[in-house]
Amino acid sequence: MTLADLQNQLIPEIEMGLRNFVKSHEFGRSAELQAMITYHMGWADDEDTEASRGKRIRPLLVLLSAGACDGTIQNAMPAALAIELLHNFTLIHDDIEDRSPLRHGRPTLWQRWGIAQAVNAGDALFSIAQLAMLVLSDTCSPEIAAQAARHLNQICLQLTRGQFLDIAFEDDNEIEIETYLDMIRGKTAALIAFSAAVGGIVSGQHQETVNRLSIYGESLGLAFQIQDDYLGIWGDPQVTGKSAASDLMARKKTLPILFGLEKCADFKTLWSQTELKTGDIDQMSELLAACGAQEYVREQAATFTQQAFTSLEMLFPNPNEYARALQELSQKLLHRDN
Amino acid sequence: MTLADLQNQLIPEIEMGLRNFVKSHEFGRSAELQAMITYHMGWADDEDTEASRGKRIRPLLVLLSAGACDGTIQNAMPAALAIELLHNFTLIHDDIEDRSPLRHGRPTLWQRWGIAQAVNAGDALFSIAQLAMLVLSDTCSPEIAAQAARHLNQICLQLTRGQFLDIAFEDDNEIEIETYLDMIRGKTAALIAFSAAVGGIVSGQHQETVNRLSIYGESLGLAFQIQDDYLGIWGDPQVTGKSAASDLMARKKTLPILFGLEKCADFKTLWSQTELKTGDIDQMSELLAACGAQEYVREQAATFTQQAFTSLEMLFPNPNEYARALQELSQKLLHRDN
Repeated sequence: MTLADLQNQLIPEIEMGLRNFVKSHEFGRSAELQAMITYHMGWADDEDTEASRGKRIRPLLVLLSAGACDGTIQNAMPAALAIELLHNFTLIHDDIEDRSPLRHGRPTLWQRWGIAQAVNAGDALFSIAQLAMLVLSDTCSPEIAAQAARHLNQICLQLTRGQFLDIAFEDDNEIEIETYLDMIRGKTAALIAFSAAVGGIVSGQHQETVNRLSIYGESLGLAFQIQDDYLGIWGDPQVTGKSAASDLMARKKTLPILFGLEKCADFKTLWSQTELKTGDIDQMSELLAACGAQEYVREQAATFTQQAFTSLEMLFPNPNEYARALQELSQKLLHRDN
Repeated sequence: MTLADLQNQLIPEIEMGLRNFVKSHEFGRSAELQAMITYHMGWADDEDTEASRGKRIRPLLVLLSAGACDGTIQNAMPAALAIELLHNFTLIHDDIEDRSPLRHGRPTLWQRWGIAQAVNAGDALFSIAQLAMLVLSDTCSPEIAAQAARHLNQICLQLTRGQFLDIAFEDDNEIEIETYLDMIRGKTAALIAFSAAVGGIVSGQHQETVNRLSIYGESLGLAFQIQDDYLGIWGDPQVTGKSAASDLMARKKTLPILFGLEKCADFKTLWSQTELKTGDIDQMSELLAACGAQEYVREQAATFTQQAFTSLEMLFPNPNEYARALQELSQKLLHRDN
């Protein structure tokens, strides 16, 4: 089966599994709390479309990784669901922390229910994610469940470290590139690394293989985020669906911008203006390209991309259909233009 | 050993265990995130006094429960630490949700670091609590660790259900007493119930004993909270350290107040005023006593107290020193006047 075949088969199973697991918990008089989670997950009855949901990339990665390790897909399902639920918990809290009013084109939880109820709903979803992971006790073994749950929570701690830096960056105008990479390593790459690693854990692989899966996932996650940073400035608006140089407009401190702040005084001067004039965005984008930021970011993305593919080849020298789908998925994620 | 002897021995061990466990995690560039947790736990170097910490009642309950079940105290320690860390995570988020500026006489995390960083620090502490529980893999077995972690997260879900109701109550003037009891069952009693139950889990007790420990803890927790509600109106200011009828002043919708709103029209009229005049508080407190709220709340507390003691007697017909200390602790918690 190709990646497309596997996606067509697995994504609906993941979606059904997520819905059933959230529904399986008793909320009694707090039914509205469950409705908040249902809304956030994109299952509100009146607007139940794929557009109001995430792409469910992480749980797909878990299942492909388990399959690539010759594990049983159904036994790995609790881990796949747990990671998607956990990812969604982090989005609820991130939206509060970033004061984002919209997600997937709809009001965020805190916008609709207020900060207090949204913080609490995030906590509820965090607990549900933990419970999903511990279902591995039944599909695999208590040993594997405890190992996966420990790893999961170490990753959660990494996420909060990344998020701490990201929030701190808002008020910091002297961010070093190494610190930025540390931030995205925690905030984005850690959970993708874990998605790959847990496929090995549930398939009973040795620690060494689990570590190598984790390294593959981390490279994939870093390459993915840096590619995102690239597209945020030089992506084709026709393809990305965002305005040209959208990250410059939004004043997001991404990798090319940090490079520019460090290497190009003219860029720094323009960036530091409190009000932007017509043409400033175009000029900033050109200054970034001229000072080598575009080339630097491309190189960084290429380096991590190469690392991801090398890791995959070493992990699966004789790839089965899942390992081949994993290669295809990595290609798709890293050579995208939107 | 008496309760006092056991407390003198165990509380410092718990405190040391908590500190070492939080310290054992690597925070790298996010060291300040760890400092936030350290501050919240009451370990900031310049103000490291018992007054800036909680009483660590829940972990003590875990260890006494494990000892009463003839379990090994040291093997139960990870569960004790996990519950105290979890309790503290909930306090960080509760303070945000309730907009409380002070805890133990010091600024709350969100007051000092802002809402975004405080939400994130709570999430970090939640993960650390989960990791602490999973150390049971090493001290007991992966089976026990997975069982305890599952139970823990079911309790976390109950906490969020209770918290959902508590936040919703702020804007609700028609709260039924049954709904209120449901709220405190989730918000306060669930974690105390689990503290008792997990002592049985780590000692390898049968599910039936674990359930009975949980029922004991729930009765204890409900009695404790209702006693608190009683003292919030009729407690002696000299003993509680709060002003007379402090819950009336703070407009907290506690059990006696809900009873009064339901049974006494005059009380409801006074309570519904937007501005209180001198003497209103005294009059409300008298109206509550006159309509039977004081007696009702005393009876409720007595009922749950009796249930707690009956459960303990049935659980431990031949109590060892830990079971006797558990009886003494329950007495102390339920017959307190502050």
